[in-house]
Amino acid sequence: MLTKVHHVGIVVKSADEALKFYRDALGLAVTADRVIEDQGVRGILLQIGQSEIELLEPTRDDTGVARFLASRGEGMHHICFESDDVDRELEAARAKGIQLIDEKPRPGLAGMICFLHPKSNHGVLVEFATPLPGGH
Amino acid sequence: MLTKVHHVGIVVKSADEALKFYRDALGLAVTADRVIEDQGVRGILLQIGQSEIELLEPTRDDTGVARFLASRGEGMHHICFESDDVDRELEAARAKGIQLIDEKPRPGLAGMICFLHPKSNHGVLVEFATPLPGGH
Repeated sequence: MLTKVHHVGIVVKSADEALKFYRDALGLAVTADRVIEDQGVRGILLQIGQSEIELLEPTRDDTGVARFLASRGEGMHHICFESDDVDRELEAARAKGIQLIDEKPRPGLAGMICFLHPKSNHGVLVEFATPLPGGH
Repeated sequence: MLTKVHHVGIVVKSADEALKFYRDALGLAVTADRVIEDQGVRGILLQIGQSEIELLEPTRDDTGVARFLASRGEGMHHICFESDDVDRELEAARAKGIQLIDEKPRPGLAGMICFLHPKSNHGVLVEFATPLPGGH
């Protein structure tokens, strides 16, 4: 069962510049800010109600986020729905013929996560996440 | 003060087709489905936690939503943050030099609304909304 919008992922050129808007102008609180080396991104989470904004700045050129930035520019990248059971969501999506990016859930910023392919979802990169105990 | 993600707006070619994913596959409940003649869109709201997904299908070719679909294809279009005072949010944004689309709040699907220009917001079309009593 999907329970909420966990976060909206936004690709930016410079996270420091983007913080001037999301943190300083909108007043959202930063809850995490770290570089994830194996994904080649600096990820920043900002709280808004029960959801988060996830700013993603590529730290090298050979990643999906870097390619997105190069081809489409800055902007909204994906939406993540929280589920109490990411394994079951993934199996349900597979059974419905939805094209998957991840064949099984894997650890990510938001907990155990998986991505569905935007081709099956009207151009939207959809993530499912089940947070791990203890949060981020 | 921004209190939550009110909705994420997604532009689609066919709302009926998109419902097969968001309503039938993801299991989200439709809370509104209507054509807004003066905006040239069919808008559908689906509930997810305290937020909504807003599907936008253009019903004619001379609108911003239709131009977005023609130039970028289906995908995420805007993010709307709920505020208890949309007038104050707009004035604060103006005072900070953020480029506005709406010079003052106007009635919209989500209540009294205004849009900020994506040029000031790292490629993201941002909406502020203060719902009217009685909801949609």
